[in-house]
Amino acid sequence: MKNDKITSRDVDFAKWYTDIVRAAHLADYTSVKGCIAIEPNGYAIWEKIQSIMDKKFKELGHVNVQMPLLIPENLFNQEKELIEGFAPELIWVTEVGNKKFDERFAIRSTSETLFCDYYKKHITSYKDLPKLYNQWCNVFRYEKETRPFLRSREFLWQEGHTVHASEEEALKETYQMMEVYRWFNHEILAIPSITGKKTEKEKFAGAEFTLTNEDLMYNGVCLQDGTSHYFGQKFSKAYDVKFTNKDNQEEYVYYTTWGKTTRAIAAIIMVHADDYGLVLPPRIAPKQVVIIPIGNDDKVNNLCNKYKEELSNSNIVSYIDDSEKSPGFKFAEAEVNGIPVRIEVGLRDLESNKITLVRRDTREKISVDCNTDIVKCVSELLETIQKDMYKRAIERRDKLTFEAHNLEEMKNILNTQPGFIHAMWCGSPECEMKIKEIKGCKSRCILEEKPIDDKCVCCGKEAKHHVIWGIQY
Amino acid sequence: MKNDKITSRDVDFAKWYTDIVRAAHLADYTSVKGCIAIEPNGYAIWEKIQSIMDKKFKELGHVNVQMPLLIPENLFNQEKELIEGFAPELIWVTEVGNKKFDERFAIRSTSETLFCDYYKKHITSYKDLPKLYNQWCNVFRYEKETRPFLRSREFLWQEGHTVHASEEEALKETYQMMEVYRWFNHEILAIPSITGKKTEKEKFAGAEFTLTNEDLMYNGVCLQDGTSHYFGQKFSKAYDVKFTNKDNQEEYVYYTTWGKTTRAIAAIIMVHADDYGLVLPPRIAPKQVVIIPIGNDDKVNNLCNKYKEELSNSNIVSYIDDSEKSPGFKFAEAEVNGIPVRIEVGLRDLESNKITLVRRDTREKISVDCNTDIVKCVSELLETIQKDMYKRAIERRDKLTFEAHNLEEMKNILNTQPGFIHAMWCGSPECEMKIKEIKGCKSRCILEEKPIDDKCVCCGKEAKHHVIWGIQY
Repeated sequence: MKNDKITSRDVDFAKWYTDIVRAAHLADYTSVKGCIAIEPNGYAIWEKIQSIMDKKFKELGHVNVQMPLLIPENLFNQEKELIEGFAPELIWVTEVGNKKFDERFAIRSTSETLFCDYYKKHITSYKDLPKLYNQWCNVFRYEKETRPFLRSREFLWQEGHTVHASEEEALKETYQMMEVYRWFNHEILAIPSITGKKTEKEKFAGAEFTLTNEDLMYNGVCLQDGTSHYFGQKFSKAYDVKFTNKDNQEEYVYYTTWGKTTRAIAAIIMVHADDYGLVLPPRIAPKQVVIIPIGNDDKVNNLCNKYKEELSNSNIVSYIDDSEKSPGFKFAEAEVNGIPVRIEVGLRDLESNKITLVRRDTREKISVDCNTDIVKCVSELLETIQKDMYKRAIERRDKLTFEAHNLEEMKNILNTQPGFIHAMWCGSPECEMKIKEIKGCKSRCILEEKPIDDKCVCCGKEAKHHVIWGIQY
Repeated sequence: MKNDKITSRDVDFAKWYTDIVRAAHLADYTSVKGCIAIEPNGYAIWEKIQSIMDKKFKELGHVNVQMPLLIPENLFNQEKELIEGFAPELIWVTEVGNKKFDERFAIRSTSETLFCDYYKKHITSYKDLPKLYNQWCNVFRYEKETRPFLRSREFLWQEGHTVHASEEEALKETYQMMEVYRWFNHEILAIPSITGKKTEKEKFAGAEFTLTNEDLMYNGVCLQDGTSHYFGQKFSKAYDVKFTNKDNQEEYVYYTTWGKTTRAIAAIIMVHADDYGLVLPPRIAPKQVVIIPIGNDDKVNNLCNKYKEELSNSNIVSYIDDSEKSPGFKFAEAEVNGIPVRIEVGLRDLESNKITLVRRDTREKISVDCNTDIVKCVSELLETIQKDMYKRAIERRDKLTFEAHNLEEMKNILNTQPGFIHAMWCGSPECEMKIKEIKGCKSRCILEEKPIDDKCVCCGKEAKHHVIWGIQY
């Protein structure tokens, strides 16, 4: 039964999105303008994202640290490009009690400044390198609109900040961490992101270049979801972070940063959820299986407990919903919360030795012998769901992927059904700006491995880059 | 060999403390006044604290959430007692870019305000209760001095905020969470905290009562380390958090909060560390064993790898230090970092089939057959270290625990060697203030189960409470 608290996705996508967020208890607006409360169901997804990514980071030699939230204005000003990019979005602390501070403190919108200041003090020799630091924290950017997970003044993220003794090593790190994000989206979130390089205009303020993961939402709007920046020696020169190299000469360190945010939760929703609620890929679902007893009966309850125990022993996270709600209510709740597999154990079914498994992604019901090997059965089903969700996401992405050979075609696509638009580009900012005039369409990323087999989509001159364009969140 | 970067503990305790923090790379001062950077070794301890406590919280039914960092001034003002207690320590956000906000926002020093505001919106019936929410986050209090982990403007903590349908249930939660903190300190940190109730003067602003864990540092100074507050209906009335009870009547919810901070790291240092560096109880050590090959030899390296693999398979966290440093340097580094067990594998020892195990806590060297069951041997040694550290901490605490029967005795103790001072108290704030005049000595907690077998230590009148007093950080 369709949840009447959820607007249909095809009727009003924006309303559908916020309906899902609230119906699945992922987050809510608060009395603090522009800031959201991440509720238990939403935070549990973030914890799962953290645990999987953090493990991967650590396998690659990274360690976690915690830098201050507040950044003194004079320190921030040392890197002009950074502050210019961020200045209008910065939020300032100016007072304690009723007393003014001598200097303003920015609340971090990103922490390059503090990491550089730290590294400056702690690095002297090539023996101190590399430093592979990461932090999980809250950051602030002043936003006028608020949409949970998608846009809010405060959000959560991880920011990696690494320094290296050579350009080669730092470049390797930049590409390696992009690959981690790509892997995570494809393998864990079942989101077939496209990975490429940002144009000069769209790269991170102060970076030499920026790599990005671009997701395509169900409605054809693009979402940047994980970026990896190569800074070269730009920041280390601005903040004077030097080391003595093997040849006993002073050199500036090579610097990279990379980050992924709670936006990933928005992507999960907008790629996978449907009119019945959230749909979670099994590998990121905090709870993978719900077991629902129908009727209060010893045989039913014992079987539920047995399944729960067997699944737990095999590291499949399940829970029994033995609350006083009606079975129908429990089914709907599990559905809106996106639990990948539902096991219904009812007396009547048991008379013929049957139980019912329900896939959240397709809502398909599967009748199974109650004496089946439940671990094998459920783990195979979870794997199938993960694969099918990924496959459907690829199909949707490909269906909304277009080619444009001139501005007219570009306009037609964007006015009909936006998506990923492949089009060649001469590399001039003027053409990029002109394309932006069509519904705010921006370059998503440059695909360096793709062929350049046409003239610039805008000016018709020689093209330099194969670019994906689209409308963004 | 004593580390020459570490002042002797008995010569200058305060200097010794900061020397340990820096030499073990736990934290450092930053260019942000009053704020510290938690470095990888320090943050790894916090991650371990988080993982053990978070698991326990979840076993007891708690879930994690994330509320905003910023609190609008008008919301904060709704609960007068709270703001009065915190007002001088509050740090305010007033500007974005170069524009003033219409209203100031406090940076959270604690989040009762936001949790109440959230609960108000989300609770209607007894069916919505209890809500057992916790959050891990950063908080701010304006401090004039800065001492890493002990006192800084920003620190990390967890804050539990739970609401219940009855006083009984909320009281049970308050005591239960105190017991979690007590368990954690005794069993995991090997710190024999004393648990009791704060006096009216020392309780949390706005609470009905506060339970506390009080640790005794090596130098006899006390440290509050984990508190659990019962608020009754005080906050729910101030913030209008109501529910319809089973009798269909409106009632205010019963509220508790409880928190533990990065101060726990300060306690670990000041209870266990010595002149050679940090000493970590095995159960909280992020790395429990370091394996150090002496000489670059296949036989040595193979054995190191074998040990590492066997220990990993049994969930004992070990690492091989195969860096290019000298063995002596590696020994000292492992020692200053507090790694509980060091395994030295050297060619000469191997000629007689021996390896050396070194306990960090006692620095005792143990010669062991190289074919020993390394997992059994090391896990038993880790258990012994944990127990011995706890035992020594109890001995030290008891040695620094005194009784005072009048003000003169109190003064003598505090002037000679501070510690935990048992003394009876009449309950009057005047006597509490008078005692505070002696070197700032404060009531640590009321021991409700202990006998009242004397007159008030200050006024000599009838005593109401058995209290522990001491000088605090």
